[in-house]
Amino acid sequence: MLIHVGYDIGLEFPSATPLMLLLDLHAGRRRDVIFEDEFNAPDISIERGLDLYGNRTKRLVAPAGALKLSYRAVVRDSGLPDEVPVNAREVPVADLPNYAMHFLGGSRYCETDELTPIAWQLFGHIKPGYGRVKAICDFVHNHIRFDYQAARSTRTAFAAYNERTGVCRDFAHLAIAFCRCLNIPACYVNGYLGDIGVLADPAPMDFSAWFEAYIDHRWVTFDARHNVARTGRIVVARGRDAADVAMITSFGQHQLKEFNIVAEEVAPKRAEELVSRAA
Amino acid sequence: MLIHVGYDIGLEFPSATPLMLLLDLHAGRRRDVIFEDEFNAPDISIERGLDLYGNRTKRLVAPAGALKLSYRAVVRDSGLPDEVPVNAREVPVADLPNYAMHFLGGSRYCETDELTPIAWQLFGHIKPGYGRVKAICDFVHNHIRFDYQAARSTRTAFAAYNERTGVCRDFAHLAIAFCRCLNIPACYVNGYLGDIGVLADPAPMDFSAWFEAYIDHRWVTFDARHNVARTGRIVVARGRDAADVAMITSFGQHQLKEFNIVAEEVAPKRAEELVSRAA
Amino acid sequence: MLIHVGYDIGLEFPSATPLMLLLDLHAGRRRDVIFEDEFNAPDISIERGLDLYGNRTKRLVAPAGALKLSYRAVVRDSGLPDEVPVNAREVPVADLPNYAMHFLGGSRYCETDELTPIAWQLFGHIKPGYGRVKAICDFVHNHIRFDYQAARSTRTAFAAYNERTGVCRDFAHLAIAFCRCLNIPACYVNGYLGDIGVLADPAPMDFSAWFEAYIDHRWVTFDARHNVARTGRIVVARGRDAADVAMITSFGQHQLKEFNIVAEEVAPKRAEELVSRAA
Amino acid sequence: MLIHVGYDIGLEFPSATPLMLLLDLHAGRRRDVIFEDEFNAPDISIERGLDLYGNRTKRLVAPAGALKLSYRAVVRDSGLPDEVPVNAREVPVADLPNYAMHFLGGSRYCETDELTPIAWQLFGHIKPGYGRVKAICDFVHNHIRFDYQAARSTRTAFAAYNERTGVCRDFAHLAIAFCRCLNIPACYVNGYLGDIGVLADPAPMDFSAWFEAYIDHRWVTFDARHNVARTGRIVVARGRDAADVAMITSFGQHQLKEFNIVAEEVAPKRAEELVSRAA
Repeated sequence: MLIHVGYDIGLEFPSATPLMLLLDLHAGRRRDVIFEDEFNAPDISIERGLDLYGNRTKRLVAPAGALKLSYRAVVRDSGLPDEVPVNAREVPVADLPNYAMHFLGGSRYCETDELTPIAWQLFGHIKPGYGRVKAICDFVHNHIRFDYQAARSTRTAFAAYNERTGVCRDFAHLAIAFCRCLNIPACYVNGYLGDIGVLADPAPMDFSAWFEAYIDHRWVTFDARHNVARTGRIVVARGRDAADVAMITSFGQHQLKEFNIVAEEVAPKRAEELVSRAA
Repeated sequence: MLIHVGYDIGLEFPSATPLMLLLDLHAGRRRDVIFEDEFNAPDISIERGLDLYGNRTKRLVAPAGALKLSYRAVVRDSGLPDEVPVNAREVPVADLPNYAMHFLGGSRYCETDELTPIAWQLFGHIKPGYGRVKAICDFVHNHIRFDYQAARSTRTAFAAYNERTGVCRDFAHLAIAFCRCLNIPACYVNGYLGDIGVLADPAPMDFSAWFEAYIDHRWVTFDARHNVARTGRIVVARGRDAADVAMITSFGQHQLKEFNIVAEEVAPKRAEELVSRAA
Repeated sequence: MLIHVGYDIGLEFPSATPLMLLLDLHAGRRRDVIFEDEFNAPDISIERGLDLYGNRTKRLVAPAGALKLSYRAVVRDSGLPDEVPVNAREVPVADLPNYAMHFLGGSRYCETDELTPIAWQLFGHIKPGYGRVKAICDFVHNHIRFDYQAARSTRTAFAAYNERTGVCRDFAHLAIAFCRCLNIPACYVNGYLGDIGVLADPAPMDFSAWFEAYIDHRWVTFDARHNVARTGRIVVARGRDAADVAMITSFGQHQLKEFNIVAEEVAPKRAEELVSRAA
Repeated sequence: MLIHVGYDIGLEFPSATPLMLLLDLHAGRRRDVIFEDEFNAPDISIERGLDLYGNRTKRLVAPAGALKLSYRAVVRDSGLPDEVPVNAREVPVADLPNYAMHFLGGSRYCETDELTPIAWQLFGHIKPGYGRVKAICDFVHNHIRFDYQAARSTRTAFAAYNERTGVCRDFAHLAIAFCRCLNIPACYVNGYLGDIGVLADPAPMDFSAWFEAYIDHRWVTFDARHNVARTGRIVVARGRDAADVAMITSFGQHQLKEFNIVAEEVAPKRAEELVSRAA
């Protein structure tokens, strides 16, 4: 299966402004990229690096005026849906590696301290393992009403639990927080979802977000927003929550003029066209 | 100058419980340790590691019943007070290294999104540099009333700003959040304060906390709680905020039975006694 | 495409001996694992972690006597051969991220200092980019004669260049060293090769080894040993050279009694059998 | 005690050339810097970062022609000599943290595979602990004859063992390799030595080098070259060996025109003069 992904982002700045971008495909998917191209202003100097979580960063100073950032790639994918490892066991805390421990604590949008009593009341009686994380997803999926109009960048997991409304990141935050309360490491993921022509939730400044729980000594994908197995997730970045993986962080004022996401399955023939047109 | 530091911590567990400890002196001070000893139960197996921030972790499974953790060390220190680099300049965001960028974002107790407008209103007009961070400390020092009785583990910087009461961690969180809002990287620090016989704020489960701001291409110490230059800070751990550097994280129920901190300057003769007694 | 991988390793120790294992599939492939199982002695306590390069480590203390380590997994793979990005450009040193810079220097088996003049003489005139790395592979492939009997764990790239004999790791080391001499970051990779029933070079204590060069802002797979596009590479570990990624490091004496590698494509029906048999 | 450190480096380049510099004081000493200043060409853009070992890197593109890099700092130091922890115990391999394990393996200039039999023959019978590392230093100190004329950038520990001649880095490499052979983690350190007016071994392109061994759960300083306790070591960089911590790495041709190191104790009054002159 081949997936065509990309973006066109138009920004406008009153004065020269530093930017940090987390838009690149995650290092773990780089080897699946069979073609990619960026179409940025030619005179912009971009500095590449890795953040603390291994995400690939790009930094630049946007000049005053308009800035256009465009990207297209074709990525190979197994085409298989999210796995459903019903026998996966939780890992006892004593056996967790240190890097998983990092994803047990509280973070900006996941107040584990506030939610711990609720988590144990709701899920403490459920048999540990895959089924318990799935129960968390079922609960969150039914508890929060998706409402794109109600998006708010300061909404935390605890607020989402109380307000019962939100967008994909709120579903993820609440499920992540519940997992951590139960001593299951969980990380926030954003990226492209390639099994549909456009993102289901085409929100300016908002990729689709899901999460991974560390069970069975590996990170398993869960999606409390859609709560069904999906195909073609192309990870861009992982972190403790949305605060760690903003697509664009602007250190100064800016206006968003255009935000267009591409994420579609393509036939091999069409992929060849895309590649040859770019060459 | 020689500083005698240590702790006696008594805990009780209803059943075997995994623990993560961030009690060791920071790796950056290890070379100043001229003597140290731990007095733990002999049959406890401790696994050492580093967390994502370079802090030295110890992990163990506490058996059911009572657990006593004790530690004493003698540490060399320059004896000089916190520096006051009045000419230190802020680093433009474009020149910040990636590892400092990590300390610009929001975190569990530092809601930069909520506090940005307030920060710019209060401090936006002040000349960038050391003086602006000092102005933040002055404001926080006067804005929050220290009240040990009012300690609350879920209080965030924004809550502290509104409630105007708190303990040392709240002073640190609010000052850190303001710095980050102004694009000055800031990290949370806890550790021993060695210029007094006992900690000024002898709080169970609470080290003294201060912060560091990244100015002039280095991390400079600030302390909004005391707001005067102190001597003999022995760093234990650094992180984004208190959520990253809890002294003891217990993954299960426990009771705290004893909590005693030692942090005192000692004369060379007394240090020799301490060392020889332990040998 | 589904690939069945695994190992059976039998070791014998005269006394209790610490081991470090780098046998787990790389974190970047974990999400492709649709089933896996380990069959170790039940009373062995294994501590998991990450090494400096992000490889997944397991550590244990082998008791005196015989130790058997077995593992089987079924892994999804795109089934596509190694890509041939003929237009991929080298990245100017000034634009390399710091983490790629790490793979420009000398290492245990890659003496860039000794080989730099030779590298520039052989490849300095070739147009930078994919073609130059391919020219290195062609040269190394023809220059070294594969001879499994001539394996030697202390042979370096410079020695392989002079002796003109070696096994897969020697091909990789020499090609890596040449790349680095030309300022192209290159890392050593070992893992399973899934397009054949058994490894082409079934060497005790020796996975198949290949390398990746950082061109076009990504890591591209090359294999100077086989020098043809292969299918189904399942990465286990990456490092600067073989010294970083030994499958088994024993801190004491041991004897290798059994060493059996499985790496074979399986039909979906057979994969189902393997899974259900294990459940 | 106050130490005045710095350098003046003059380079000449036939064409624009990327440079990687490891000249900054180590992050662990930054808090002791009471004043510092750089005097570089004003139009050079410098990018700061951290390498894999936590050393502070600077990268730049030197323009064609002459480049002058100058630096001065005043650093606080305890003034105490290297410690002599005669009771420090070795840490069993099973209890070593993963980050110390990294410093057990072979590296470019430390061929542990070649030297293991020799190491066990020479030091295997000695009681583990501080005394064994000291015995290694004594042996290396007496085995190698210091000869500045015989410096060679490709000399490894095994070559130094056989040739019995070398400079400070060779002493460090051989002692490090022996430690690792005995399962004692050891890292290479370079930096300023502040207890003398000029470096004892004032070598162009060569800082003084020593090493640290991980015993007693901490890194302890050893110096096989001088083999006496020294005062005022100001660490610049740590790594596996000299290949990781070159002061200047030039990715292209260059000529060294000037190389001047400052490392001297200064009285407080003189330090004040230095600071005020720079302000």
